[in-house]
Amino acid sequence: MIETQLAKARRGEITPEMETIARTEGIDPQTLMEGVSCGRVVIPANKRHRGLKPIGVGEGLTVKVNANIGTSSDHADPDEELLKLEAAIEAGADTVMDLSTGGDIDEIRRLILERSPLPVGTVPIYQAAIEVAQRKGGIVMMTADDIFEVIEHQATDGVDFITVHCGVTLSSLERLKIQGRITDIVSRGGAFLATWMIYNERENPLYEDFDRLLEIAQQHDITLSLGDGLRPGCLADATDRPQIQELLLLGELTERAWAEEVQVMIEGPGHVPLDQIETNVLLEKKLCKGAPFYVLGPLVTDVAPGYDHIVCAIGGALAAYHGADFLCYVTPAEHLKLPTPEDVREGVVATRIAGHAADVARGLAKARTWDDDIARARKALDWNKQIKLSIDPTKATQYREESKPETDEVCTMCGKFCAIKMVREFFQRT
Amino acid sequence: MIETQLAKARRGEITPEMETIARTEGIDPQTLMEGVSCGRVVIPANKRHRGLKPIGVGEGLTVKVNANIGTSSDHADPDEELLKLEAAIEAGADTVMDLSTGGDIDEIRRLILERSPLPVGTVPIYQAAIEVAQRKGGIVMMTADDIFEVIEHQATDGVDFITVHCGVTLSSLERLKIQGRITDIVSRGGAFLATWMIYNERENPLYEDFDRLLEIAQQHDITLSLGDGLRPGCLADATDRPQIQELLLLGELTERAWAEEVQVMIEGPGHVPLDQIETNVLLEKKLCKGAPFYVLGPLVTDVAPGYDHIVCAIGGALAAYHGADFLCYVTPAEHLKLPTPEDVREGVVATRIAGHAADVARGLAKARTWDDDIARARKALDWNKQIKLSIDPTKATQYREESKPETDEVCTMCGKFCAIKMVREFFQRT
Repeated sequence: MIETQLAKARRGEITPEMETIARTEGIDPQTLMEGVSCGRVVIPANKRHRGLKPIGVGEGLTVKVNANIGTSSDHADPDEELLKLEAAIEAGADTVMDLSTGGDIDEIRRLILERSPLPVGTVPIYQAAIEVAQRKGGIVMMTADDIFEVIEHQATDGVDFITVHCGVTLSSLERLKIQGRITDIVSRGGAFLATWMIYNERENPLYEDFDRLLEIAQQHDITLSLGDGLRPGCLADATDRPQIQELLLLGELTERAWAEEVQVMIEGPGHVPLDQIETNVLLEKKLCKGAPFYVLGPLVTDVAPGYDHIVCAIGGALAAYHGADFLCYVTPAEHLKLPTPEDVREGVVATRIAGHAADVARGLAKARTWDDDIARARKALDWNKQIKLSIDPTKATQYREESKPETDEVCTMCGKFCAIKMVREFFQRT
Repeated sequence: MIETQLAKARRGEITPEMETIARTEGIDPQTLMEGVSCGRVVIPANKRHRGLKPIGVGEGLTVKVNANIGTSSDHADPDEELLKLEAAIEAGADTVMDLSTGGDIDEIRRLILERSPLPVGTVPIYQAAIEVAQRKGGIVMMTADDIFEVIEHQATDGVDFITVHCGVTLSSLERLKIQGRITDIVSRGGAFLATWMIYNERENPLYEDFDRLLEIAQQHDITLSLGDGLRPGCLADATDRPQIQELLLLGELTERAWAEEVQVMIEGPGHVPLDQIETNVLLEKKLCKGAPFYVLGPLVTDVAPGYDHIVCAIGGALAAYHGADFLCYVTPAEHLKLPTPEDVREGVVATRIAGHAADVARGLAKARTWDDDIARARKALDWNKQIKLSIDPTKATQYREESKPETDEVCTMCGKFCAIKMVREFFQRT
């Protein structure tokens, strides 16, 4: 019988994970412990995940960035997934989620867990549905046991957090039906469950048997990420009744999880116009009593496939500025194909930019130091330092080397008419 | 003696340019004319720019995007500049600025004007300072006549708008000196003028002889873009006294320009943390009586050279949402080198995404239709239509073709477990 980080925090125990995180974040361990104890901070750290470098997600901490990797039925190469993991780690992701739906799902997850010092998340309904489809000929043949067995199995493997779409209920689907949407359901997990529920005329087992889920989560201290199976898939569907109905239920489930000392965070949209982002964050924080908010984007326009990492950076920066704690990246490949390792890298960096911009704007201790340091290096025309301090020194080096200036102290944008050089030389002279 | 668009609007004349713009924007020509008459909208359209497709910038219109092109002393190839012009036009820029500081500046500008249906802007102080440096051995030898002659010369060539750093005055430089900044001056125009002023112990001719500038602008209906020579070059310097001192002066000059029926817009920062963007837009709108705001970025962090188009998309989207009218793009090459045509393309698309996201959020008629149309194509799994409606169909096609799904109706991200496909098939069956 293990105790969760939440249980320990409530007893006033500062765990080794809290010590590490407090050090990294530059905050007081006591403050962090209090955040965990009231559910405003989660530490997704499964005891069976060896070599884990723990991180915290929530109030008062830097914004975290998740990178989704994993195979699909159309493209399943375990080696490529490991390259994506490597790219995510190198680019500075804080967590990865293995969303594999193709190939040997167990094997790929085990490889990723073995090699990832970052917390690893999964969406167990994928494996449950896909294996049932293979075994019984259709996902609608799935039983509640099939779902919970996969969850327990993945928890035993060492998964640190799982997305569970507990709020896709008969009542939420009723709201969806009355609403009428352009894109209906765009969540894979949501689609698996909705299909199953409608066919079987049954309630979602993850909602109906939520206590069983809590028992597994408590026993492994696996953090629940309450998924938004009814998140909007386009701007037109944002902040509508099915989305908010689901969120209401997730708020109730949050309190039930806390009652069982289970750590929980809330997943959020999705596709949301710029002017609705603040409201979405505020709603989550109010309805879910301050539980950490994990947003998927949000994407502030639907028109830019091929550039959705940029679309997501805009929405993510604004969401995090208003209080979102955890940003799921989107890669340039979103809506078009499974990402490559290079797409993963681009997605992580774009999302880290968003998170850091929000950290600065929220006045987080230490965040602005980075900007000031690189600004001083820029003023000093110290290129080595500028590049070393860049969010991606490899890319910065590549750009600089592609176009060599006549004199090393400037760049080819302004050449000898570099404003910084002119002003510096002149001010030194006078 | 010509009349400016502003003069005609005040007389109640709807010009052919206003007709065209009203049609493109889907608004009433009368409304547009009223916007121009009170200075809240500018139409940068020099009569001598043949083949110009006029655009409007300001209140009630879609956010516009400018692409900076032009040579530097380290890299001056006219053919490459024409390729950049082509890339900017193809990617959907609304205007271009020729910022050339290397090679035959006159010749490059004439080539660009000849081939650009988009309004063309310049920064005449570059040519003035550089030619004086070549001719007389130092930019400090420049005279007021040297500056005004270049301005008149460029106006005669057909330039539609010019950046003039009229607010870099002895009083603003005094504020700069007292303030103490990390990056001092990062504007090239600002640096040329400050250097000249301090050396010569003279006021800025563009401020002192502002009437002479207005006369040229009125005679050619060239729109003045009042430049921010003291814009912050890093987050630490944002919204400080020299920046706001300059803005106060630009507000006064705006009213003097309007008195002479000269069209005017205001340039803004620069490097600005996310939480100061709204304030910066509000200040400009108040201090400059609603004159259109043309922001350079803003960049919400200093740490991401190689990704500054993304940094700028975040800041630009938020600035435009709060009321900025015109976004100057930044390319991934910013702070590292002169951009290539490919960098230009990336910069334009990123900035168009920001502008469009703001148009949607501001509730602009027509803007959201684009998103809804692509969302419907996505729901219908109509890939040809999705790609055709994409902001950059070439890139979307390239991504899709790099990774072929087993069946054409899905993509390799989810393969046969595509949520849209599952839900659609299932809902059709039941």
